[in-house]
Amino acid sequence: MADDVFYMKQALIEAQKAADRGEVPVGAVVVCRDRIIARSHNLTETLNDVTAHAEMQAITAAANTLGGKYLNECTLYVTVEPCVMCAGAIAWAQTGKLVFGAEDDKRGYQRYAPDALHPKTVVVKGILADDCAQLMKDFFKKKR
Amino acid sequence: MADDVFYMKQALIEAQKAADRGEVPVGAVVVCRDRIIARSHNLTETLNDVTAHAEMQAITAAANTLGGKYLNECTLYVTVEPCVMCAGAIAWAQTGKLVFGAEDDKRGYQRYAPDALHPKTVVVKGILADDCAQLMKDFFKKKR
Repeated sequence: MADDVFYMKQALIEAQKAADRGEVPVGAVVVCRDRIIARSHNLTETLNDVTAHAEMQAITAAANTLGGKYLNECTLYVTVEPCVMCAGAIAWAQTGKLVFGAEDDKRGYQRYAPDALHPKTVVVKGILADDCAQLMKDFFKKKR
Repeated sequence: MADDVFYMKQALIEAQKAADRGEVPVGAVVVCRDRIIARSHNLTETLNDVTAHAEMQAITAAANTLGGKYLNECTLYVTVEPCVMCAGAIAWAQTGKLVFGAEDDKRGYQRYAPDALHPKTVVVKGILADDCAQLMKDFFKKKR
Protein backbone atom coordinates (compact mmCIF):
# COMPACT_ATOMS: atom_id res chain seq x y z
CA MET A 1 0.00 0.00 0.00
CA ALA A 2 2.84 2.42 0.86
CA ASP A 3 4.46 1.31 -2.39
CA ASP A 4 1.23 1.87 -4.29
CA VAL A 5 1.09 5.45 -3.00
CA PHE A 6 4.74 6.02 -3.89
CA TYR A 7 4.33 4.82 -7.46
CA MET A 8 1.02 6.60 -7.93
CA LYS A 9 2.80 9.83 -7.00
CA GLN A 10 5.18 9.09 -9.87
CA ALA A 11 2.21 8.60 -12.20
CA LEU A 12 0.82 11.93 -10.96
CA ILE A 13 4.09 13.63 -11.90
CA GLU A 14 3.55 12.27 -15.41
CA ALA A 15 -0.06 13.45 -15.41
CA GLN A 16 1.11 16.95 -14.49
CA LYS A 17 3.46 16.90 -17.50
CA ALA A 18 0.44 16.14 -19.69
CA ALA A 19 -1.47 19.06 -18.12
CA ASP A 20 1.48 21.37 -18.76
CA ARG A 21 1.28 20.46 -22.47
CA GLY A 22 -2.46 21.05 -22.64
CA GLU A 23 -3.17 17.32 -22.77
CA VAL A 24 -5.90 15.60 -20.73
CA PRO A 25 -3.85 14.93 -17.57
CA VAL A 26 -3.41 11.19 -17.28
CA GLY A 27 -0.08 9.66 -16.31
CA ALA A 28 1.21 6.12 -15.94
CA VAL A 29 4.22 4.17 -14.77
CA VAL A 30 5.04 0.46 -15.06
CA VAL A 31 6.88 -1.16 -12.17
CA CYS A 32 8.71 -4.47 -12.35
CA ARG A 33 10.47 -5.86 -9.28
CA ASP A 34 10.48 -2.49 -7.50
CA ARG A 35 11.89 -0.68 -10.50
CA ILE A 36 10.07 1.79 -12.76
CA ILE A 37 10.62 0.47 -16.29
CA ALA A 38 8.30 2.86 -18.15
CA ARG A 39 6.84 6.34 -17.63
CA SER A 40 4.34 8.02 -19.88
CA HIS A 41 1.58 10.56 -20.14
CA ASN A 42 -1.28 11.17 -22.50
CA LEU A 43 -0.10 12.61 -25.83
CA THR A 44 -3.16 12.38 -28.03
CA GLU A 45 -3.08 16.07 -29.02
CA THR A 46 0.68 16.35 -29.43
CA LEU A 47 0.87 13.20 -31.55
CA ASN A 48 -2.49 13.78 -33.22
CA ASP A 49 -3.32 10.17 -32.39
CA VAL A 50 -6.28 8.89 -30.39
CA THR A 51 -4.32 5.76 -29.47
CA ALA A 52 -1.60 7.71 -27.62
CA HIS A 53 -3.09 7.26 -24.15
CA ALA A 54 -0.66 7.04 -21.23
CA GLU A 55 -1.36 3.34 -20.69
CA MET A 56 -0.80 2.36 -24.34
CA GLN A 57 2.56 4.05 -24.42
CA ALA A 58 3.50 2.57 -21.04
CA ILE A 59 2.71 -0.96 -22.24
CA THR A 60 4.70 -0.53 -25.45
CA ALA A 61 7.65 1.02 -23.58
CA ALA A 62 7.65 -1.60 -20.83
CA ALA A 63 7.63 -4.46 -23.34
CA ASN A 64 10.49 -2.77 -25.14
CA THR A 65 12.50 -2.55 -21.91
CA LEU A 66 11.78 -6.15 -20.97
CA GLY A 67 12.30 -7.58 -24.44
CA GLY A 68 9.08 -9.54 -24.13
CA LYS A 69 5.53 -8.51 -24.78
CA TYR A 70 3.90 -9.85 -21.60
CA LEU A 71 3.80 -7.89 -18.35
CA ASN A 72 2.80 -10.70 -15.96
CA GLU A 73 5.42 -9.63 -13.45
CA CYS A 74 4.57 -5.95 -13.70
CA THR A 75 2.23 -3.43 -12.12
CA LEU A 76 0.72 -0.65 -14.22
CA TYR A 77 -0.09 2.50 -12.23
CA VAL A 78 -2.36 4.99 -13.92
CA THR A 79 -3.96 8.10 -12.45
CA VAL A 80 -7.38 7.55 -14.03
CA GLU A 81 -9.40 4.39 -14.68
CA PRO A 82 -8.43 3.01 -18.09
CA CYS A 83 -10.85 3.31 -21.02
CA VAL A 84 -12.02 0.29 -23.03
CA MET A 85 -9.10 0.54 -25.44
CA CYS A 86 -6.51 0.62 -22.68
CA ALA A 87 -8.24 -2.14 -20.70
CA GLY A 88 -8.02 -4.30 -23.81
CA ALA A 89 -4.32 -3.59 -24.13
CA ILE A 90 -3.77 -4.28 -20.41
CA ALA A 91 -5.48 -7.63 -20.97
CA TRP A 92 -3.43 -8.56 -24.06
CA ALA A 93 -0.27 -7.78 -22.07
CA GLN A 94 -1.46 -10.12 -19.31
CA THR A 95 -0.54 -7.37 -16.87
CA GLY A 96 0.03 -8.76 -13.38
CA LYS A 97 -1.52 -5.89 -11.45
CA LEU A 98 -3.38 -2.71 -12.33
CA VAL A 99 -3.57 0.18 -9.87
CA PHE A 100 -5.61 3.23 -10.76
CA GLY A 101 -6.49 6.44 -8.95
CA ALA A 102 -9.73 8.18 -9.93
CA GLU A 103 -12.66 6.31 -11.44
CA ASP A 104 -14.00 7.48 -14.81
CA ASP A 105 -17.75 6.93 -14.78
CA LYS A 106 -18.14 8.23 -18.32
CA ARG A 107 -15.38 6.50 -20.27
CA GLY A 108 -13.94 3.91 -17.88
CA TYR A 109 -13.78 0.20 -18.81
CA GLN A 110 -15.85 -0.80 -15.78
CA ARG A 111 -18.92 0.65 -17.42
CA TYR A 112 -18.48 -0.66 -20.97
CA ALA A 113 -16.36 -3.77 -20.61
CA PRO A 114 -16.26 -4.95 -16.99
CA ASP A 115 -14.82 -8.33 -18.05
CA ALA A 116 -12.21 -6.97 -20.44
CA LEU A 117 -9.18 -7.49 -18.20
CA HIS A 118 -7.22 -10.76 -18.00
CA PRO A 119 -8.77 -12.87 -15.22
CA LYS A 120 -5.40 -13.08 -13.44
CA THR A 121 -4.86 -9.30 -13.29
CA VAL A 122 -5.14 -7.99 -9.71
CA VAL A 123 -6.95 -4.65 -9.61
CA VAL A 124 -6.50 -1.98 -6.91
CA LYS A 125 -8.58 1.20 -7.15
CA GLY A 126 -8.70 4.57 -5.45
CA ILE A 127 -5.02 5.19 -4.67
CA LEU A 128 -4.65 8.99 -4.33
CA ALA A 129 -8.01 9.21 -6.09
CA ASP A 130 -8.69 12.78 -4.97
CA ASP A 131 -5.38 14.10 -6.29
CA CYS A 132 -5.83 12.24 -9.57
CA ALA A 133 -9.39 13.52 -10.01
CA GLN A 134 -8.43 17.08 -9.04
CA LEU A 135 -5.95 17.32 -11.90
CA MET A 136 -8.71 16.31 -14.33
CA LYS A 137 -11.21 18.74 -12.81
CA ASP A 138 -8.72 21.63 -12.98
CA PHE A 139 -7.96 20.79 -16.60
CA PHE A 140 -11.57 20.70 -17.78
CA LYS A 141 -12.44 23.82 -15.76
CA LYS A 142 -9.72 25.74 -17.60
CA LYS A 143 -10.98 24.43 -20.95
CA ARG A 144 -14.44 25.87 -20.39
CA MET B 1 -21.54 -3.45 -51.30
CA ALA B 2 -19.37 -3.96 -54.42
CA ASP B 3 -17.01 -1.37 -52.93
CA ASP B 4 -17.01 -3.15 -49.59
CA VAL B 5 -15.93 -6.38 -51.31
CA PHE B 6 -13.23 -4.56 -53.26
CA TYR B 7 -11.73 -2.93 -50.17
CA MET B 8 -12.05 -6.08 -48.06
CA LYS B 9 -9.96 -7.84 -50.71
CA GLN B 10 -7.30 -5.20 -50.09
CA ALA B 11 -7.50 -5.91 -46.35
CA LEU B 12 -7.13 -9.63 -47.15
CA ILE B 13 -3.94 -8.89 -49.09
CA GLU B 14 -2.64 -7.23 -45.90
CA ALA B 15 -3.74 -10.21 -43.80
CA GLN B 16 -1.82 -12.53 -46.10
CA LYS B 17 1.31 -10.42 -45.52
CA ALA B 18 0.86 -10.98 -41.79
CA ALA B 19 0.52 -14.74 -42.35
CA ASP B 20 3.70 -14.73 -44.45
CA ARG B 21 5.56 -13.19 -41.47
CA GLY B 22 4.18 -15.73 -39.00
CA GLU B 23 1.78 -13.17 -37.52
CA VAL B 24 -1.88 -13.86 -36.72
CA PRO B 25 -3.34 -12.96 -40.13
CA VAL B 26 -5.43 -9.85 -39.70
CA GLY B 27 -5.29 -7.02 -42.22
CA ALA B 28 -6.90 -3.60 -42.43
CA VAL B 29 -7.30 -0.65 -44.77
CA VAL B 30 -8.79 2.79 -44.17
CA VAL B 31 -10.73 4.38 -47.02
CA CYS B 32 -11.58 8.06 -47.27
CA ARG B 33 -13.53 9.39 -50.27
CA ASP B 34 -12.79 6.29 -52.37
CA ARG B 35 -9.10 6.42 -51.65
CA ILE B 36 -7.11 4.01 -49.47
CA ILE B 37 -5.25 6.24 -47.02
CA ALA B 38 -3.80 3.53 -44.76
CA ARG B 39 -2.90 -0.17 -45.05
CA SER B 40 -1.68 -2.35 -42.22
CA HIS B 41 -1.43 -5.84 -40.84
CA ASN B 42 -0.95 -7.33 -37.44
CA LEU B 43 2.67 -6.96 -36.24
CA THR B 44 2.50 -7.98 -32.58
CA GLU B 45 5.28 -10.58 -32.88
CA THR B 46 7.55 -8.56 -35.15
CA LEU B 47 7.29 -5.44 -32.99
CA ASN B 48 7.06 -7.38 -29.72
CA ASP B 49 4.06 -5.22 -28.84
CA VAL B 50 0.54 -6.38 -27.98
CA THR B 51 -0.85 -3.04 -29.14
CA ALA B 52 0.36 -3.50 -32.75
CA HIS B 53 -2.93 -4.85 -34.08
CA ALA B 54 -3.80 -4.04 -37.69
CA GLU B 55 -6.59 -1.67 -36.69
CA MET B 56 -4.44 0.33 -34.24
CA GLN B 57 -1.78 0.93 -36.85
CA ALA B 58 -4.40 1.76 -39.48
CA ILE B 59 -5.99 4.40 -37.23
CA THR B 60 -2.64 5.98 -36.39
CA ALA B 61 -1.55 5.95 -40.04
CA ALA B 62 -4.85 7.34 -41.33
CA ALA B 63 -4.82 10.20 -38.82
CA ASN B 64 -1.26 10.93 -39.88
CA THR B 65 -2.29 11.10 -43.54
CA LEU B 66 -5.30 13.29 -42.82
CA GLY B 67 -3.54 15.57 -40.37
CA GLY B 68 -6.44 15.21 -37.95
CA LYS B 69 -7.17 12.56 -35.40
CA TYR B 70 -10.84 11.89 -36.21
CA LEU B 71 -11.94 9.49 -38.93
CA ASN B 72 -15.60 10.53 -39.23
CA GLU B 73 -15.38 10.55 -43.02
CA CYS B 74 -13.55 7.23 -43.21
CA THR B 75 -14.34 3.54 -43.40
CA LEU B 76 -12.11 1.03 -41.64
CA TYR B 77 -12.04 -2.41 -43.28
CA VAL B 78 -10.64 -5.24 -41.21
CA THR B 79 -10.64 -8.95 -41.96
CA VAL B 80 -11.60 -10.05 -38.44
CA GLU B 81 -13.95 -8.53 -35.84
CA PRO B 82 -11.98 -6.04 -33.73
CA CYS B 83 -11.05 -6.90 -30.16
CA VAL B 84 -12.00 -4.70 -27.20
CA MET B 85 -8.82 -2.64 -27.49
CA CYS B 86 -9.34 -1.93 -31.18
CA ALA B 87 -13.06 -1.25 -30.74
CA GLY B 88 -12.10 1.36 -28.14
CA ALA B 89 -9.66 2.98 -30.56
CA ILE B 90 -12.25 2.89 -33.37
CA ALA B 91 -14.61 4.71 -30.99
CA TRP B 92 -12.07 7.37 -29.95
CA ALA B 93 -11.41 8.03 -33.65
CA GLN B 94 -15.16 8.51 -34.21
CA THR B 95 -14.77 6.25 -37.24
CA GLY B 96 -17.59 6.80 -39.72
CA LYS B 97 -18.00 3.18 -40.79
CA LEU B 98 -16.54 -0.14 -39.71
CA VAL B 99 -16.63 -3.15 -42.05
CA PHE B 100 -15.34 -6.46 -40.82
CA GLY B 101 -15.15 -9.94 -42.33
CA ALA B 102 -15.11 -12.90 -39.93
CA GLU B 103 -16.60 -12.69 -36.44
CA ASP B 104 -14.37 -13.53 -33.47
CA ASP B 105 -16.54 -15.22 -30.86
CA LYS B 106 -13.65 -15.56 -28.43
CA ARG B 107 -11.98 -12.15 -28.45
CA GLY B 108 -14.31 -9.90 -30.44
CA TYR B 109 -15.70 -6.68 -28.97
CA GLN B 110 -19.31 -7.81 -29.48
CA ARG B 111 -18.91 -10.26 -26.63
CA TYR B 112 -17.08 -8.09 -24.11
CA ALA B 113 -18.02 -4.54 -24.98
CA PRO B 114 -21.04 -4.47 -27.30
CA ASP B 115 -21.54 -0.73 -26.68
CA ALA B 116 -17.89 0.26 -27.08
CA LEU B 117 -18.20 1.81 -30.54
CA HIS B 118 -19.21 5.42 -31.15
CA PRO B 119 -23.01 5.53 -31.56
CA LYS B 120 -22.66 7.14 -34.99
CA THR B 121 -20.36 4.44 -36.40
CA VAL B 122 -22.13 2.36 -39.07
CA VAL B 123 -21.20 -1.32 -38.78
CA VAL B 124 -21.25 -3.83 -41.64
CA LYS B 125 -20.34 -7.45 -40.88
CA GLY B 126 -19.61 -10.59 -42.84
CA ILE B 127 -17.99 -9.18 -46.01
CA LEU B 128 -15.87 -12.06 -47.44
CA ALA B 129 -16.24 -13.68 -44.03
CA ASP B 130 -15.29 -17.17 -45.25
CA ASP B 131 -12.05 -16.01 -46.87
CA CYS B 132 -11.14 -13.96 -43.78
CA ALA B 133 -11.89 -16.87 -41.43
CA GLN B 134 -10.05 -19.38 -43.63
CA LEU B 135 -6.78 -17.44 -43.34
CA MET B 136 -7.11 -17.59 -39.54
CA LYS B 137 -7.96 -21.30 -39.55
CA ASP B 138 -5.00 -22.14 -41.81
CA PHE B 139 -2.70 -20.14 -39.55
CA PHE B 140 -3.73 -21.80 -36.30
CA LYS B 141 -3.74 -25.26 -37.94
CA LYS B 142 -0.09 -24.78 -38.92
CA LYS B 143 0.76 -23.58 -35.39
CA ARG B 144 -0.50 -26.80 -33.80
